[in-house]
Amino acid sequence: MDEQINKKYLANKIFETQFALEDLRQIVRQALPTGMSDEQSAHFSEIVSGLGGLIEEIGAKDGQTHPVSIVGDLMCRTREEEFINIQPIQAGGRLTPEARKAVIAYGDGYSTCDNCRKPFRLDKIEKPSIAEFHTELAEFVGMDQARVVPGARRGFQAVASTLVEKGDTVVVSAFAHYTEFLAVEGAGGVVREAPVNEENVLTAESVAHKIDEVKKETGKLPSLIMIDHFDYLFCNEHDIYGIGKVAQEYGIPFLYNGAYTVGIMPVDGKKLGADFVVGSGHKSMASVAPSGVLATTEEWSDKIFRTTQMVGDVTGRKFGIKEVEFLGCTLMGAPLLSMMASFPYVKERTKHWDEEVRKSNYFLNEFLRIEGNEVLSEFPRKHALSKVDTTNSFDKVAKTHKRRGYFFSDELKKRGIAGEFPGATRSWKLSTYGLSWDQIHYLSDAFLEIAEKYELNIN
Amino acid sequence: MDEQINKKYLANKIFETQFALEDLRQIVRQALPTGMSDEQSAHFSEIVSGLGGLIEEIGAKDGQTHPVSIVGDLMCRTREEEFINIQPIQAGGRLTPEARKAVIAYGDGYSTCDNCRKPFRLDKIEKPSIAEFHTELAEFVGMDQARVVPGARRGFQAVASTLVEKGDTVVVSAFAHYTEFLAVEGAGGVVREAPVNEENVLTAESVAHKIDEVKKETGKLPSLIMIDHFDYLFCNEHDIYGIGKVAQEYGIPFLYNGAYTVGIMPVDGKKLGADFVVGSGHKSMASVAPSGVLATTEEWSDKIFRTTQMVGDVTGRKFGIKEVEFLGCTLMGAPLLSMMASFPYVKERTKHWDEEVRKSNYFLNEFLRIEGNEVLSEFPRKHALSKVDTTNSFDKVAKTHKRRGYFFSDELKKRGIAGEFPGATRSWKLSTYGLSWDQIHYLSDAFLEIAEKYELNIN
Repeated sequence: MDEQINKKYLANKIFETQFALEDLRQIVRQALPTGMSDEQSAHFSEIVSGLGGLIEEIGAKDGQTHPVSIVGDLMCRTREEEFINIQPIQAGGRLTPEARKAVIAYGDGYSTCDNCRKPFRLDKIEKPSIAEFHTELAEFVGMDQARVVPGARRGFQAVASTLVEKGDTVVVSAFAHYTEFLAVEGAGGVVREAPVNEENVLTAESVAHKIDEVKKETGKLPSLIMIDHFDYLFCNEHDIYGIGKVAQEYGIPFLYNGAYTVGIMPVDGKKLGADFVVGSGHKSMASVAPSGVLATTEEWSDKIFRTTQMVGDVTGRKFGIKEVEFLGCTLMGAPLLSMMASFPYVKERTKHWDEEVRKSNYFLNEFLRIEGNEVLSEFPRKHALSKVDTTNSFDKVAKTHKRRGYFFSDELKKRGIAGEFPGATRSWKLSTYGLSWDQIHYLSDAFLEIAEKYELNIN
Repeated sequence: MDEQINKKYLANKIFETQFALEDLRQIVRQALPTGMSDEQSAHFSEIVSGLGGLIEEIGAKDGQTHPVSIVGDLMCRTREEEFINIQPIQAGGRLTPEARKAVIAYGDGYSTCDNCRKPFRLDKIEKPSIAEFHTELAEFVGMDQARVVPGARRGFQAVASTLVEKGDTVVVSAFAHYTEFLAVEGAGGVVREAPVNEENVLTAESVAHKIDEVKKETGKLPSLIMIDHFDYLFCNEHDIYGIGKVAQEYGIPFLYNGAYTVGIMPVDGKKLGADFVVGSGHKSMASVAPSGVLATTEEWSDKIFRTTQMVGDVTGRKFGIKEVEFLGCTLMGAPLLSMMASFPYVKERTKHWDEEVRKSNYFLNEFLRIEGNEVLSEFPRKHALSKVDTTNSFDKVAKTHKRRGYFFSDELKKRGIAGEFPGATRSWKLSTYGLSWDQIHYLSDAFLEIAEKYELNIN
């Protein structure tokens, strides 16, 4: 039997206590090296004496709860503490405790730059071990060199801006993420989609066919192929190995979009035939947004990571090893430190990907026991993120319920579950990533309970 | 008489306590909505019972101190707690307590996106009040519309990428920051520097002259003028009003680089004649890196903030109001929330800029009492960041000291001061921004004390 607790109360009490500690920290920052003034000392004592009470209240695990303000009406976010969060894109970017600690210690603006020495570039800093992290990051995705970027999209942008000339074609998937389109648009290129098959899967043949089509129409091969291993729509797995081979056969550079893979499942870029691997820190690497990684091979690194050639016409200034596509340094703060702090855990968790897939399938099998429920993604699942359809189950209830589709959100919320798209009872997405088996069982039971309550048939 | 404290000890004890609270928070996250398991409950109690001791230790204000690990050998940063930090570019980006609290509550990847609804763009989110913040941000810099960006450099990039065609010329200052060069390089443009005068100040005449030169040589006007109000080299003030007028006279778009102004002093873009105002969150807005703002006028907003025109050739997909230059959403995490949380304080502090300048001049006047010391920046100062020269004072000591230039770093460190460039005793930069008068007096005395110790003359 579980010990009952008030999660909302605890989340808020913990915030209150952390905030009191931040206030203490501020006094330490403002105190002279010789010590605290009387005023500072009095303020310090006052906060310290309040902390005892706060900790007692945490120990009580339940009580009256008030939302905690950060400043003015900006309130604390308690979704991850209060709820089992099945929001489709938040799961892989939930911070580890280590990342949260890093963010506390390294929040200040240029906090990573205390020991920036010649040649003055973020990825060369040795303390904290940013340089080493870059080496490990490249290795982690099976490539030779890596840079951190403010989001996967900035990785697409760097590659498109380097390889795509005005009017060039880039082949993407019919399920390509919009940020790939925008990256190509920014470079002045044209996007062509390779269609998926009737199973909503992109095959190597489809990509080859699209390349041929482009060649025939424009007289030129596409200058880049950019493919999502798992897509954002159904999170189906596409034939990335086959596509990698096609890219090599045609001699077209190939960008592997690992926004939904790097950091949650093993990725070996070279084995995939990728010239570029892009990952997302806030989507799949338990990191603060915006963050991500762009990795490449020795062959491409000089081009993508090219350094500035600019010379001041009056001053003769040159800017050393600053890289054009990254505008010098990129993630010089807490987002990078959160990536680094989560990294040991992230490396470990990718080894247990099969377990995550098992949990995903376990939940969906239970979910499918509710008559009318459908899984729109390929099934059995190969991923923790799935698109489901409840038009013939929960949406039927919604039709006559006074809260319409929100009845379903209400029922989930009552059971401590959040992250469904509020009010949506037809097709919607969810992720079970990172939930424990206990949470998976609880989640499954909750869905069945709701179905039962509204007299839907359960098989 | 100040009460002596051990700042290093306190910083580490506070971190230890905060980290214990993060561990508690993790248990709350993992507990089922129905409650904690026996194991979770035991772990929770164990941490809670340790907290009492930690708080007692904080209350003691001194004791044995150990560096605190975040994970493995990634240790906490205590520079801001332990030292008066005069590092030239870290001062304006030091977080407020409010920003630090925001980062605790909003660290998780897509934390800002809980309530993202149609039309699905970061700057439209109303809870937390991101939309309202964007409106206020534009107002704050005297412009019509604003977007947050991952660093000022990404603002330069967006403008250059929009306005600069291959081969176009962009006029910058002879003291322009390297990121301006890189932004133009990325767009395929050519940079031309307008020379500063003998006082190291850029005049409107110099910019006008450069424009004429470009026109004469290329037959075309520059497509953009990009000028730093205060430069990174000396932090001198340049004739930004005059330059704004010149830009208007020639009808050339004008980007005001406010990396060293927006967030620390009042900036009114329209009054300056600016078409674009760029600011840096981590340099001057007490925010997590990378962060910044790009603001513009109604006239330019359609162009710079243009939305995607891409259409999937197979799927017919369109991507609504996603903006090309920003690749959709930009700062969807803690950096944005830190900007928002610091904003009320930041708005207030810009009103007291004259006081910051007074402190800067007070310190430098004391500094100049040491024979041989020079201020290389314009003097009296109009900014808190200054370049100084100690070749004829501290560097003379360094010449015969066994620690060379590091003697000076050692002496500062002993007095609880950090942020000088380690080992540099010729020309170097420092900032007094954000220090209290007590800290300014302490800092001034420390410099005089060191001079005295090494028998330098003091006037």
